[in-house]
Amino acid sequence: MGLGEFDIIRKYFAPASERSDVLLGIGDDAAVLEVGAERKLVVAMDTIVEGVHFPVGTDAADVGYRALAVNLSDLAAMGAVPSWMTLSLAMPRADLGWLDGFAGGLLQLAHAHAVALVGGDTVQGPLAVTIQIAGWVEADGWLRRSGARAGDILFVSGTPGDAAAGLALIQRAAAGDAAGAEHLIERFLRPEPRVQLGRALRTVASAAIDISDGLLTDLDKLCAASGCGAQLDVDALPLSSALRAVFDADACVHYALAGGDDYEMIFSIPPTRIAQVAALNNGNPALCTRIGEITGTRTVECRRAGRAFAVERRGYEHFS
Amino acid sequence: MGLGEFDIIRKYFAPASERSDVLLGIGDDAAVLEVGAERKLVVAMDTIVEGVHFPVGTDAADVGYRALAVNLSDLAAMGAVPSWMTLSLAMPRADLGWLDGFAGGLLQLAHAHAVALVGGDTVQGPLAVTIQIAGWVEADGWLRRSGARAGDILFVSGTPGDAAAGLALIQRAAAGDAAGAEHLIERFLRPEPRVQLGRALRTVASAAIDISDGLLTDLDKLCAASGCGAQLDVDALPLSSALRAVFDADACVHYALAGGDDYEMIFSIPPTRIAQVAALNNGNPALCTRIGEITGTRTVECRRAGRAFAVERRGYEHFS
Repeated sequence: MGLGEFDIIRKYFAPASERSDVLLGIGDDAAVLEVGAERKLVVAMDTIVEGVHFPVGTDAADVGYRALAVNLSDLAAMGAVPSWMTLSLAMPRADLGWLDGFAGGLLQLAHAHAVALVGGDTVQGPLAVTIQIAGWVEADGWLRRSGARAGDILFVSGTPGDAAAGLALIQRAAAGDAAGAEHLIERFLRPEPRVQLGRALRTVASAAIDISDGLLTDLDKLCAASGCGAQLDVDALPLSSALRAVFDADACVHYALAGGDDYEMIFSIPPTRIAQVAALNNGNPALCTRIGEITGTRTVECRRAGRAFAVERRGYEHFS
Repeated sequence: MGLGEFDIIRKYFAPASERSDVLLGIGDDAAVLEVGAERKLVVAMDTIVEGVHFPVGTDAADVGYRALAVNLSDLAAMGAVPSWMTLSLAMPRADLGWLDGFAGGLLQLAHAHAVALVGGDTVQGPLAVTIQIAGWVEADGWLRRSGARAGDILFVSGTPGDAAAGLALIQRAAAGDAAGAEHLIERFLRPEPRVQLGRALRTVASAAIDISDGLLTDLDKLCAASGCGAQLDVDALPLSSALRAVFDADACVHYALAGGDDYEMIFSIPPTRIAQVAALNNGNPALCTRIGEITGTRTVECRRAGRAFAVERRGYEHFS
């Protein structure tokens, strides 16, 4: 039927945000809310469903970890510091061993970010985890999707494509066959939310989004929100050695551009602030990689070896 | 296996709340959070799953309405004013007609309480709705489960039992057979969250809880949190004329005590403040009914026609 997630939100739910204390409502990685304090409250909610967002049989600890990681990634893309979460856990039956693992994975990541679980619900139903994450951002600015301008430089964090490649390996059950496969699978199961990077970029980047649906799909959202376009240099994509060890060059590019689940960040930087991004790479040279620039058109174009390059599939769109 | 929802929460998740800005964590109807402002933030999250919390085939508008109503009820039980919500909607496929109805029911109740929908997620999966509700309560006090003391008077709002009776009628598909049936079904599908009453009770009641799992089950939770017991006068239960028209006396009592889904409030009032509750009944005499009192034991006892009365089933316990 071709109705994507974003159309659903726009059509049915976007008009519902009519309070003056909603500083930023539906349509970005998170909402920003006025609480009458110096800082602004930032909230996001993400759900993962067994068989849709993670394979049936995924280890419980990985499910718990991943459910929080994807939410933390939304706060990272706002430049916010996470603080609290609520959890809804639906499961077919109370399995104590599974719960033990799930809680362990969830709370491991929660403790690493000093996030407190403050409430929620446990219900009987097909396995699904919903987390609402809340956090804080300073009043003088937060990262949005909408601030990119023509001439800004486009960056990506980490090595996109690993997670989608890891998922493909899980689905093929071919994990043991190649060096690097274990690393790729780990990248799918336990993405590293870029909270620290988001904080560093808060007053530096002109726009940011996290990669959940695929680099090109999410870049397109950033460009749509900013009213601009982008030109992306495929040869500049930072591909991990693990990805290159397991897949051929074309597959690597496909996973990096069209795969999802990376939870890395795409962000645009005004040319005058490039040095600040370079400084972030001190001690971690692979943290941020320049992959293109923002243009004044409304299209996202890829170039590879100096020629226009078309990608078949543009990432995951729900209900499409 | 007998592991109930509350055991799950206690065992695996309760130790996770270790931040000084968590004023009230897991274990009450909602959490209370310090945001550095005059008011305190109150948050709760509830999930409803098709086939578990509402029958397959329930009208989409009723699903939307009910998903928010059960969350508003949690804020009511804290004495809080609702402000924002986030929504996770899982559905098997994007059905435009269904979505239209769902959004209509949800936003109807949201507008009535000036609640803004600020974000969320739509995913593919078995039909389930999770809402996190947020709101505000004054720093000088909020309703808890834990403040009841021996000698306090026990009240209930509205007419408990209607919702469970309505659900039974839906499940029998016998709705058209009796006068009052339509009213009972409406009470299940569209519970009225007692937000205004909660506000009025905020500094009057010593303890409060909303009825989701059944009057006796939820009263027991209130007593457990307060370290006390209760004696309940079955003959004092306010049974609706609709309930009495459709069911015999024993069934009425059973639904009122052991049925769930009422989203009415149970609350305890120190004897010195009884007049304040009586004042609330001006203009709406059926709003609050005295049904018993708090005792110093740790048991909840029912009396009917002057004799001890045992109830078979004590409401709905998840995973039991």
